[in-house]
Order: sequence, then C-alpha cells, then structure tokens
Amino acid sequence: MKLARRLERLGTETAFSVANAAADWSARGNTVYPFHLGDIDLPMAPHIVEALNKAIADGHTGYCPGPGIPELRAALAEEIGSQRGMTIDPSSVVVTTGGKPVITKFLQAVMNPGEGVLYPNPGFPIYESQIDYFGGQALPYRYVPTDDGFAIDLEHLRSMITDTTTAIIYNDLQNPISAESTQEEREAIAQIAREHDLWVLSDEAYFEIRYEGTSSSIAALPGMAERTVILYTFSKKFAMTGSRLGCAVAPQAIAEVMSTMNTNDESCTNQYVQWAGIAALTGPQDHVHDMLATFQERRDLTCELVNSTPGMQVAVPHSTFYVFPDVTEAMERVGVTELSEFADLALHNTGVSFCTREHFGRLQEWDERKYIRLAYSGIDAEAISKGLGRLKEWIESH
Amino acid sequence: MKLARRLERLGTETAFSVANAAADWSARGNTVYPFHLGDIDLPMAPHIVEALNKAIADGHTGYCPGPGIPELRAALAEEIGSQRGMTIDPSSVVVTTGGKPVITKFLQAVMNPGEGVLYPNPGFPIYESQIDYFGGQALPYRYVPTDDGFAIDLEHLRSMITDTTTAIIYNDLQNPISAESTQEEREAIAQIAREHDLWVLSDEAYFEIRYEGTSSSIAALPGMAERTVILYTFSKKFAMTGSRLGCAVAPQAIAEVMSTMNTNDESCTNQYVQWAGIAALTGPQDHVHDMLATFQERRDLTCELVNSTPGMQVAVPHSTFYVFPDVTEAMERVGVTELSEFADLALHNTGVSFCTREHFGRLQEWDERKYIRLAYSGIDAEAISKGLGRLKEWIESH
Repeated sequence: MKLARRLERLGTETAFSVANAAADWSARGNTVYPFHLGDIDLPMAPHIVEALNKAIADGHTGYCPGPGIPELRAALAEEIGSQRGMTIDPSSVVVTTGGKPVITKFLQAVMNPGEGVLYPNPGFPIYESQIDYFGGQALPYRYVPTDDGFAIDLEHLRSMITDTTTAIIYNDLQNPISAESTQEEREAIAQIAREHDLWVLSDEAYFEIRYEGTSSSIAALPGMAERTVILYTFSKKFAMTGSRLGCAVAPQAIAEVMSTMNTNDESCTNQYVQWAGIAALTGPQDHVHDMLATFQERRDLTCELVNSTPGMQVAVPHSTFYVFPDVTEAMERVGVTELSEFADLALHNTGVSFCTREHFGRLQEWDERKYIRLAYSGIDAEAISKGLGRLKEWIESH
Repeated sequence: MKLARRLERLGTETAFSVANAAADWSARGNTVYPFHLGDIDLPMAPHIVEALNKAIADGHTGYCPGPGIPELRAALAEEIGSQRGMTIDPSSVVVTTGGKPVITKFLQAVMNPGEGVLYPNPGFPIYESQIDYFGGQALPYRYVPTDDGFAIDLEHLRSMITDTTTAIIYNDLQNPISAESTQEEREAIAQIAREHDLWVLSDEAYFEIRYEGTSSSIAALPGMAERTVILYTFSKKFAMTGSRLGCAVAPQAIAEVMSTMNTNDESCTNQYVQWAGIAALTGPQDHVHDMLATFQERRDLTCELVNSTPGMQVAVPHSTFYVFPDVTEAMERVGVTELSEFADLALHNTGVSFCTREHFGRLQEWDERKYIRLAYSGIDAEAISKGLGRLKEWIESH
C-alpha cells in the first residue's frame, strides 16, 4: 500500500541523530558532555506549578476555545506589546502548543504551492522542511561573518526575490548562529518586505534570552504589524520547553485562520497549562533573571574555552544560548574534511557532543568555512569546563 | 495582501456557534441547559494529578521524543492491545496532543490530492474538513435508522468506491449518532477495505464509553492491522479533554511518518502530561467506573424524556455520551422547517441548547428526516430533567 507523495517533501530535524549517538556513547559507559541540546536543565518556577495545580483544582480541565483562553490572550497581548512598544489587541493572539506550530500554520496561511519564501540558512531546520512540504520554493539567504558575529548578506537576499516571492522568515537572535540584527539591518529587512509586499514570520523565540542590550521586534517598525506574524514561546524564557506553550501574534485575517487551524488540528492547547502561562507572565520574574545569570556565566566560559582552542574562534554573542564557532582550522589540524566525521571523532575522543552547520538546513554553494553549534542551556559550568577542556587537549594533540 | 488559496478548502466545527449562542443567552440572565457540549463536567482523578506533579518535581519538564516517551508508548501498546485482543509493539504507538491530530496526520500520510476518502456523514466534522483541505475527494457514506439505532448503508457505501478511493474513516461508537456496528457490519467494512486495498482510520475515541456489551476494534480482524490506524484518546475515558493527550496506533511506515510530522508540527506532546497518562492507564480505575455509572443514569433519563416528548424518538444507545433523536414530527408540530430555527426557538423558549445534524458534515440529498444531538456528558441529572422537561412542555404546547 502506498503512502502519499507529499511525504517525499517532508524534512525533519536531523539533530535527533546527534542525541541518539550521544545516548548510545553514554550507554556504553562513557561520559558525555551534552552541547547538542536546545533544551534547558533548570526547573519551572514554583509559582508556575502552583498556578497549574490551582487551575486543575478549579476545574479548568476541559476543552477551551481554539485560539486560547481569553485571560491568557489578554496577558500575552499586554506582555508582548509592552516589551516591543506595540499596542496588541488580544484578538491578534492565537495560543499554540509551543512556538513551533506557528511556523507551519504561517506557511499554510500565506504560501501557495510554487511561491517563494526566503529563510535563513543556516537556520532552524523546520523552516526549510515546511516550505518544501507545502510545495513552496525554499529561498535560502545567507550570513557573513563580521567582527562581532554575523550579518545578513542583504544584497544576496535582494537578488533572490522574484515576482512569486511571498514571504520572508526572519529570526533575529538567531538559532543556530546567535546572529543579531543591528537596527539598520532590521530596518533594511522591513524595507524589503514593504517594497516587495512580503509577509513576514518574525521568529522571536529568543527575544528575552539576552545578556547585554535590548531586543527589538521588526513588527514594531512602520507598516510592519499588518504584514508580520510574531512567533512567541514560553519554552526558553520560563524553562517550559516540555510544557508546549506559545502563541502567534498575527494580523486579524491570519489570526482567524490560525484559530480555525487549531480547531482542525488539535482543538486547543492544554487548558491548565494556559493558566500556568498567565502566572509565568504576570508573577515574579526572579527565576528568569537567575536563569539568565546562569546562562551568561556559561556563555562566557564557553566562549573563553572555544577561543583558547587552536583553530576555533567565535565572537561573544549577546543573546540566545548558542555559540557557532568557526572550526575550519581545527578540522584541518585533526585531519578531517567532513563535519559529521569531526563530530563523531570529538564525541568518541572527548565525550563532547554537538550539532554542526549541517543540521540547520541544506548545505549551500557558499558554505566554505566549517561551523559547529555549541548549546550551553543544558550543561552546567563544571561540565562545560571539563568537556571543552578535553576537546581543546584533543585538538592540541594533533 | 493575499492569503493562500488552500484556505478556501478549510472547514471547521460550526458547533462553536451553538456554544456562543448559549453563552450569549446565559449572559442575558437566562438559564441554559447545555446539551451541546462534547465535554465532561467531572474532575480528573487525583492519582493522575499526583503523577503529573511528581513528573514536574522529577524534572520531566523538557522536550521529549517526537513520538512520545517510551514508558507511555509501552503502556499504551499494552492497554490498547489487551482491550482489543491484539499484540501491539510500542514502536507502533505515536503520542499526539489529543486524538484529533491523528485525523489530519492520517490523511496527510495516505491521501494524495484528488483521491477519494469515505467518511461517515453525519459524522465528526473534522473528517470532511481535512479531506477537503488536503485536496482529497470527500465521499460521504450514510446510516439508515434501525429498530435499535442506526446501520451503515453498505450497498450505498460500496457504490461510491472508485479506482481513486484510497481510504475509509470508520467511527464505530459514532459521534454524533451513537451508532455501533454489529460484528457482521464491522466485518463487512473490513472486507471492503481488504477488497479495495483501502487504508482505514478507526476512530475509537468512545471505545470505553459504553454501558452494556463490549467494544471490538476493526484493527483486530484478519489482515486489518497492517492497513488500519487506530485513533485513541485519554479525553473521554479519563475526563482529560483539556489535557490534550492521545495517540495513533499505526502500521510501522505510518508511525514513522507521524513521528516526523510531530517533529515538524509541535516537537512533542507536553512531557509531564504524558507521565500523568501512564498513571491514568495503570492506576486505579474506579473514577472511570464511577463516571460511566453517572453517564448511564444520564443516558437513561435523557432517552426517557426524549421518548415521552411528542414527535421525538430515539433508540437507547449502548455507548458514547450522545443521543441523536429524530425530531421531524416535533418540528412540524412547532411549525418550523429549518433545524437551525428549531434550535434557536428551543434555546429561547426553554433554555435547552443542542447541536443539530447540520453541525456534523455537509447536508446530503438523503437527509429527509430531521435530527438533533443531545450530549449528556456536561450536564447533571437534575438539569437534564428540568431542561428536557421544559422542552417537552414547549413542544406539547403547540
């Protein structure tokens, strides 16, 4: 019996194979230093758990409206708006089971088969997978290294736009490369969107995960709110990855469509988790500050060790919990040309487990330098020191 | 700016308008008797809530594998298999955010655009919506009234099959009409599926919601497991509608595809709710038995009052928490020809709120008699008596 042909276009997150390899190596009695996880090893705050239990005790265990409970939509409109200098109506907020559903629902809402969607590459792999899956034309745009990180190659991006280009996915505070737009770059992207009448998905999953400076949203720029869908998630800021709670902030027509998609796809998001979400947004924020302080310490340590390793270098990023070092010379030193081989050897010689550039979208002709992604959200300072210390020694030994 | 053309094919559950009308009438100071809800007014069992909290305390608050935590998949394989006389491998189980996602993921996995899918009409409205949305040809099959309920019109069903028919959706223990297959009918559907090489979605949401007799699965019949996806949900049996926890039991190739879809669509289902699900499956079942006893009392009362009302009649169903009375003569007596008008008048004259046949798939040429759906899962015995008592008086007054 045959499966549907559309499945030939369905990609995935290949990073799971890294997790499997790490688990396998660990099961054979080896120490693993997990830098491959985009997960968080810190607990949910007690007042969030209390609110969840209160909601269950109060009988909030049934179905709720597809776009979410009104109280959470109002709290999200207030919080997301105030952080971005925008006025957001609660009717623009559609609650989702984490931030990820916003990607597929955005693309289904705005992209016809054959139409082009610009997306960052390297970037979160589900962008490319879902553009392909729903029959769009995936148009990768690229980043170039700068003194303090990475910048979007705007000229190249502009050159890819045609009459059939319908949207751009923009991930300021970027996974995996930790790139962050200057105000100038953000405005240039907005200008391109207005000029070519593009829809924008602004993936703001890491908006609050920053250590210096302040975040800004492209949606707050002139003429952008009406063409931009913000992806918001509780996962990172509140250490709630496993709770699966997020939302879209969308122009009215798209919000209505996404609400109908929720009704079709999963009825609604877990109701008592939504009540817990209100407590997360409106309750004490000391857990958030403590987590960011912990991450900052880990970031500094990670960058220091990376930059003291021969053939590896990275600019210290101000946001996200990833670093994306250039390891081209380190690989030459070890004598390997393939990133996957480098990752395998690192795991089996040092226990350090990480994803590489190859897990974040199809390789492109412009991929000359080699990069890996180190995530420090799921590994404590002691393990960071030990693991990256071993990695450094191993590379030095060549 | 334009939205995607596929949205023109996206349907929804129009029953929400009934809920809105009822809420509106209630807000204006009137008593409403809610027979429109497919929700449950009973609490989750305490041991399930305890397990959820233990999981949070144990740190199970992060991401988990796309197809679910291995412990829940194993518990589901054991429970679902033992209740159906099947041996199910845990790798066939894919955990989902409620039962509903199994519908869209099944159709995406097996149906190409233009291919036909048989589905029950009246039936759960999302079947039709999702077949349309993904470009399939929706092929409604019908039920005919019998002395003790409804039977599938097998001859008519067979007449709709063509070379491009690829699947059948089968909802034994049916929402909204409470139909239940005889063993003969179930075997006939299986025979049709084998003969025409059809995939089968067996929606078993109400498998355990029964008051007499025992449930059987079409998947357990010879040659069926390899072509059947079972939709299983915690929603009804464990009063967990708002928890959004369910699963598919699927042939290996489809289980793998659904797992990849989970990774694309929402990463995974809430992890601590999955641990709570294990407690629901393996813990004490007295809450389930108490709930069924409560529902049985409500069913008996509902059927008695319906059948004592002039122009309304229904056979007592053995399963689900719906009754689907024929109200053709009652409507004639009141002097209305449209179901929506009958429902409006009933709400405003008696406070009784209900869905009608029109909320469960497009009307067909064979729709001659008029039906309404009364759900008794969200209304207690006292309110059932009062509400249906008022409905009876109102109809008698004409």
